Amino acid sequence: MTKWVYSFGKDKNDGDSSMRNLLGGKGCNLAEMAGLGLPVPPGFTITTEVCTQYYDNDQSYPDELKGQVEEALAAVENQMNAKFGDSSNPLLVSVRSGARVSMPGMMDTVLNLGLNDETVKGLEEQSGDARFAWDSYRRFIQMYGDVVLGVDHHEFEEVIDRYKRETGLRQDTDITAEGWKEIVAEYKAVVERETGNPFPNDPQEQLWGAISAVFKSWMVPRAITYRKIHEIPESWGTAVNVQSMVFGNMGEDCSTGVAFTRDPSTGENYFYGEYLINAQGEDVVAGIRTPQSLTKQGREKEGSDLPSMEESMPEVFKQLDEVRLKLEKHYKDVQDLEFTVQKGNLFMLQTRSGKRTAKAALKIAVDMVEEGLITQEEALLRIDPQSLDQLLHPTLDPKANKDVVTKGLPASPGAASGKVVFSSEEAEIQTNQGEKVILCRQETSPEDISGMHAAQGILTSRGGMTSHAAVVARGMGTCCVAGAGELHIDVVGKTITAGDRTIKEGDILTLDGSTGEVMVGAVDTIQPELSGDFGTLMEWADGRRRMKVRTNAETPLDAKAAREFGAEGIGLCRTEHMFFDQARIQNVREMIFATNEADRRAALEKLLPEQRADFAELFEIMSGLPVTVRLLDPPLHEFLPHSQEDIDNFAQVAGIPHEKVRLRLSELHETNPMLGHRGCRLGITFPEIYEMQARAIFEGALEAKAKTGQSTAPEVMIPLIGTQAELDILRKAVENVAASVFEEKGETLEYSVGTMIELPRACLTADEIAQSADFFSFGTNDLTQTTLGMSRDDAANFLPAYVGHGIYERDPFASLDVDGVGRLVELAAHGGRQTNAGIKLGICGEHGGDPASIQFCESINLDYVSCSPYRVPIARLAAAQASIKGEGLGKPKAAEAKKAA
Amino acid sequence: MTKWVYSFGKDKNDGDSSMRNLLGGKGCNLAEMAGLGLPVPPGFTITTEVCTQYYDNDQSYPDELKGQVEEALAAVENQMNAKFGDSSNPLLVSVRSGARVSMPGMMDTVLNLGLNDETVKGLEEQSGDARFAWDSYRRFIQMYGDVVLGVDHHEFEEVIDRYKRETGLRQDTDITAEGWKEIVAEYKAVVERETGNPFPNDPQEQLWGAISAVFKSWMVPRAITYRKIHEIPESWGTAVNVQSMVFGNMGEDCSTGVAFTRDPSTGENYFYGEYLINAQGEDVVAGIRTPQSLTKQGREKEGSDLPSMEESMPEVFKQLDEVRLKLEKHYKDVQDLEFTVQKGNLFMLQTRSGKRTAKAALKIAVDMVEEGLITQEEALLRIDPQSLDQLLHPTLDPKANKDVVTKGLPASPGAASGKVVFSSEEAEIQTNQGEKVILCRQETSPEDISGMHAAQGILTSRGGMTSHAAVVARGMGTCCVAGAGELHIDVVGKTITAGDRTIKEGDILTLDGSTGEVMVGAVDTIQPELSGDFGTLMEWADGRRRMKVRTNAETPLDAKAAREFGAEGIGLCRTEHMFFDQARIQNVREMIFATNEADRRAALEKLLPEQRADFAELFEIMSGLPVTVRLLDPPLHEFLPHSQEDIDNFAQVAGIPHEKVRLRLSELHETNPMLGHRGCRLGITFPEIYEMQARAIFEGALEAKAKTGQSTAPEVMIPLIGTQAELDILRKAVENVAASVFEEKGETLEYSVGTMIELPRACLTADEIAQSADFFSFGTNDLTQTTLGMSRDDAANFLPAYVGHGIYERDPFASLDVDGVGRLVELAAHGGRQTNAGIKLGICGEHGGDPASIQFCESINLDYVSCSPYRVPIARLAAAQASIKGEGLGKPKAAEAKKAA
Repeated sequence: MTKWVYSFGKDKNDGDSSMRNLLGGKGCNLAEMAGLGLPVPPGFTITTEVCTQYYDNDQSYPDELKGQVEEALAAVENQMNAKFGDSSNPLLVSVRSGARVSMPGMMDTVLNLGLNDETVKGLEEQSGDARFAWDSYRRFIQMYGDVVLGVDHHEFEEVIDRYKRETGLRQDTDITAEGWKEIVAEYKAVVERETGNPFPNDPQEQLWGAISAVFKSWMVPRAITYRKIHEIPESWGTAVNVQSMVFGNMGEDCSTGVAFTRDPSTGENYFYGEYLINAQGEDVVAGIRTPQSLTKQGREKEGSDLPSMEESMPEVFKQLDEVRLKLEKHYKDVQDLEFTVQKGNLFMLQTRSGKRTAKAALKIAVDMVEEGLITQEEALLRIDPQSLDQLLHPTLDPKANKDVVTKGLPASPGAASGKVVFSSEEAEIQTNQGEKVILCRQETSPEDISGMHAAQGILTSRGGMTSHAAVVARGMGTCCVAGAGELHIDVVGKTITAGDRTIKEGDILTLDGSTGEVMVGAVDTIQPELSGDFGTLMEWADGRRRMKVRTNAETPLDAKAAREFGAEGIGLCRTEHMFFDQARIQNVREMIFATNEADRRAALEKLLPEQRADFAELFEIMSGLPVTVRLLDPPLHEFLPHSQEDIDNFAQVAGIPHEKVRLRLSELHETNPMLGHRGCRLGITFPEIYEMQARAIFEGALEAKAKTGQSTAPEVMIPLIGTQAELDILRKAVENVAASVFEEKGETLEYSVGTMIELPRACLTADEIAQSADFFSFGTNDLTQTTLGMSRDDAANFLPAYVGHGIYERDPFASLDVDGVGRLVELAAHGGRQTNAGIKLGICGEHGGDPASIQFCESINLDYVSCSPYRVPIARLAAAQASIKGEGLGKPKAAEAKKAA
Repeated sequence: MTKWVYSFGKDKNDGDSSMRNLLGGKGCNLAEMAGLGLPVPPGFTITTEVCTQYYDNDQSYPDELKGQVEEALAAVENQMNAKFGDSSNPLLVSVRSGARVSMPGMMDTVLNLGLNDETVKGLEEQSGDARFAWDSYRRFIQMYGDVVLGVDHHEFEEVIDRYKRETGLRQDTDITAEGWKEIVAEYKAVVERETGNPFPNDPQEQLWGAISAVFKSWMVPRAITYRKIHEIPESWGTAVNVQSMVFGNMGEDCSTGVAFTRDPSTGENYFYGEYLINAQGEDVVAGIRTPQSLTKQGREKEGSDLPSMEESMPEVFKQLDEVRLKLEKHYKDVQDLEFTVQKGNLFMLQTRSGKRTAKAALKIAVDMVEEGLITQEEALLRIDPQSLDQLLHPTLDPKANKDVVTKGLPASPGAASGKVVFSSEEAEIQTNQGEKVILCRQETSPEDISGMHAAQGILTSRGGMTSHAAVVARGMGTCCVAGAGELHIDVVGKTITAGDRTIKEGDILTLDGSTGEVMVGAVDTIQPELSGDFGTLMEWADGRRRMKVRTNAETPLDAKAAREFGAEGIGLCRTEHMFFDQARIQNVREMIFATNEADRRAALEKLLPEQRADFAELFEIMSGLPVTVRLLDPPLHEFLPHSQEDIDNFAQVAGIPHEKVRLRLSELHETNPMLGHRGCRLGITFPEIYEMQARAIFEGALEAKAKTGQSTAPEVMIPLIGTQAELDILRKAVENVAASVFEEKGETLEYSVGTMIELPRACLTADEIAQSADFFSFGTNDLTQTTLGMSRDDAANFLPAYVGHGIYERDPFASLDVDGVGRLVELAAHGGRQTNAGIKLGICGEHGGDPASIQFCESINLDYVSCSPYRVPIARLAAAQASIKGEGLGKPKAAEAKKAA
């Protein structure tokens, strides 16, 4: 018989943390904590397999489930010495979701379940607090009505508002037990009116209603969206945790809180967290009251007057601090804890791996190696390479003028400027139109996930460091200022008021997520200074990786930045980028308009000194390192004037009649420029273009050599090769130019000639092409376009639907399509090495900076990856991880790399 | 020691017809004829290997060559009892080229070589005819001066013109021996003036000059062009034939002629040919004098008064007729002969396989099987499938009004209309611009090859059935009317005068190459009636082929034509073609402009009855045969209005504001539509479109079944599949529609669902996709575009250069790129069969009608090919040939198929 239900708690504990897939994150860790002897209120977990069964069988449960739940509930009753539905000593439970990975706020929770008109009296008796009992009851009806029965929570709020109006009471806290009793009656009337059925009085019915609500919530749109963004398979399902209630709202000796074993923003090793006295757990996370710091240190850091838990409840704090140390040592990682103190007794409600900023992750990993908790390799594997992005992006220039209107909580680090929008939808729309936006909300909720993902920054006027906005933004690496209470954010009127200033929709705001500052207007940014931890980790990574990491760069600025980030050469210098310069484009255009070779050569002659100077500078910056220069690649018409004004200007300066300009423009028009007259096809039809470029490369390299005294071996890369014959013709042309230059200058240097592999045909005939190539560089951008028959420029109309349907797990332009494109790359690597054992193999598409793609590159033994400058550190770490995983598992086969990544 | 020189003739005969590659076509057949005891003037062949050596070694000869030539020449002197350069009894020779395959008129010929001021006297003595001797001498100087020394032939013609003006003589025949002697002196002066050197007097110098001229002519542009058009590798080289002269111009008992052993136009088994009395061979081919028929039958057919050879030289004719029968029996094929009669003695100068029209080829092949000369399989292999095209294209409607201006010789069958052009260059330019042109020339020359290839038809005012124009046009399958002597074709003034009518450049002419009629204006055409021979051969082909042949068709007209041509079903019905109909496009556009599913469904509802009727009719026509229907494939914007007028119209009828129309148009614009939102991506994003189409298919099929009583199994084809997931989603949708329709109608039918394989990714993951597909149809058009990264619409700018450089041997859109695209197709076929052994595999790209590509399909064991209706017979024959070759050679591997084809 399948075991569908696992108990946890002191007396009966069936699970442990190894059973995450089955019990979900929350469930397995509750069992693990119970196993460690920590105070966990007893309960049980209904497995994720039930969820899968539920959806596979038309939303019905396995037959044995009911019996197993009864049995587990009985065990809880036993331990708690209370009885579910008992009118004198009722057991109350919470029902919570718990998927394999934490999905904060995404799944619905019901507290105080088991209360009804009978059991409320038992609670009153047991607690000796009628007001608490009836408040708990009304909370239960409100939560259950909202989450399980689908009654709009405004309906309930209205009842309280009306009650307060009628009685003249101001605060919820002013309402007495009698008041709550009246409200409970009205709540039940609301439920009956809205649903057509009375509120369920039977605790069993309540329980199964809540369990079903959890399973149903797995498929609500916001959950689907979250899974999409975080690439969580639908098939994983969620578990349901039923746990006996403990109360943090039974009086002043009660509290509830959320904590991290280290500071999740900075990584600092001190106990970081918040608590609220006399409150239920959801009050902290929802950000309705601003919570107090756990520690004195924390309180002082935040400049708060409210006493810390360390100060107000020193005994319980000490106990909690011990739990903290025990759990971190046990899990060897930072933990994110939830706890409740009921009448001076500590209860642990959750532990999980703590989400942290990249900066914190680095510090924690390095510190833990130094503390002897983990190995260097574990530290390397623990950092998500993508997260380094957060460290590498600009921060605000401290010298810039800042028009600070207020300061909120520094909820997620980084800096961002953008137009103010007030809804998730608007954030998405404007971002899709290419705008940068700041999403401004009183507080965020799971419905806002898509908009938060789209926005550059998030600003809220309510909620703390562990509010929804803060947690989600840190997870996304998006800058966030939370709880900026001085701001009045009016999402209906679409204004923000700060004292006497008004900010309207569309105005520019700048956020500094590291200080909490909110500024009007755009503020200059500067490069981040990288911490010593970063350097340490990168050093470890460099020691562990096999593949080299180069950069894609053509400007001196990018090349310098990349070298500072640790690039070991240039993998792709796109020479055409040098042509777009305003000062040169006229010459380029004249070259294109030339109708014969002589005129074309004359125009090229003017471009030569400029290209030579470009290359000389680049070779100088990359002195001693390899530089791959790709010859002209895009269709010529990309360089042409398009606007009326541009056309007029060009015609006038060039002295070419308008008519002729127009004719040539129409001649150069292409239906599918991506598949048109470009790449080496230009070299075949207009050999003089590549000759000029080759000359500029060799002359520039000699110039740089003379200056630095160090030789840089240029790697001349011919783009868009489909056949060996093309490469033979163009290689010969390059070699002829090299010979001429060397003879003219009386000096030589090493160089190589290779090709970009970016067409399926090139992959299929790589064995032939490799006979004429010193290197292959996989241009996986174009290879993805051709292999998938998908234009990157046009895919926006259908690619989101494709990822939504799971047709592609990830955007294949962001992460290499291993099954399709990857197979071709593997074929080509194999074919190339078959006929040219010494061939150098690298990748220079955008995928060169994507960790999953880098792991694939390792699996097929490429020599290097090349990526944009800011991704170089990411690639260094990802390459190290790939090396470690590769050795650990034996080389994974290409097809498996994707899954492993 | 390498043997560079092979003798032929009665006494010393080194070669035979098996040595074609070494001796060239002409050389090997001269040796073969000599071996058969036929009267061949002795001579020798310098091998094609010398040509290769010559170009490999900076245009120099192997050391041993000179000695071997001397030796062979001595053998000729011996047999002829004359001596090269001897003043009393000089041996004269011709020097001719001879490549492996016949290249008519492409290579230069020199006659009467060995004449100089001394030997001319010997010729005078030997012939007893001073006028003949000096005429021969001046002909030699003229020909040698032109061909070897590069003196413009106008220079020589001017000398004769001036001489005639000064002496008052009218005709060349009026010029006496003395006159020719004066002209010889002037010719020599011309040569010295033009070249700076005296005309070579030394026969040895003359001989080597001519040999070199032959080798050099291998690389002149016109030869290169011819090879390109006829796909002849440059590496083959040419041989040189040196042969003792015989003279057809020594008097009235002399003649020269060209003959075919059967009629090369109709295939009729009678002796077909022309001769000229008292003429040299070149006079016949050059078309300067209109020649006489060989036979009485031929003379009567042409309605000529000039006596046939059968009548005027009955003895020699009889001898020639015996040669004819002997050669045909020996070669088992129609021969193209050249002969000369010198003073009543017959000499054979050439035999080769006769070029013939497709109609003739068919008749000859079928007749020869019936005569027991060849087997059915030999007959099948002997017909070039491409040539059937000639039989299948329309001829003039006999009931159409024809404005006939003149009648010339029916030189190459077929009918064509087009704009009049007067130069090869203009023919090419206009054709490239999409015009259809008729190339009009007094006579054609090898320089005109490119233009003849481009033109729809060729018209000449001079020359006979074996003139350059006629021979080349027949080879190309281009319609040609030759020798329309009533026309004055003025290529400088760009007019044609016919009596009092004037036709200008750009006017429309129609030619009937089967009757020789020339008509002003365009004339209606009709389908050809196919001969019984065609039916016989097709029957043999059907008996020998393994692959089925289907057609690509969507209109009833095409479908009917294809079925008549023997199509065994439809391999590709492009449903979108049904949408372009003027009456429907408005509904299609409204469907596209719909901004929500409901509006889109409403517009689709209007299209449903039309699509259903389309399919019902198609299924009826193809009753009992499979029909593959491809669901909507092209990007939606292809259907949209583009011109201002169209946009206005659409907006008005649809009642959509202009602004909105414009916005939607810009939204639908794509950078690379070929790689954009099309194919199954439309089905994924707008499922209702495919649902409507599927419904139309199933309802239409049931309708047709009810009508014909015979079921047609629809094959629903999903285009542009790249992943199995896409196919799963769309297959399910189609199956749902089928189930609904069957339930509604209370009736079912067999159907299958498959996919077009047209993306590299689909090929690479075919093993997965095949698990969800009943069939694959290779869409090699798009697969070529994506695999090669080459847009068919844009390739014109570079593809000619690519074929010119030999980067691709043939246009990869016309003939499958076996090494690249073919490899993917092979991978996919293999992958598909691995997981779905019963999967049906076919091809439906343009390549499905290309014989070389069909052989590739056979080599990888596809089940069928599908091509345009007019190519169905071509495919049937090509499939049979592929079967025969496949069995003969064992299955050739894919990579070898190209070479074998």
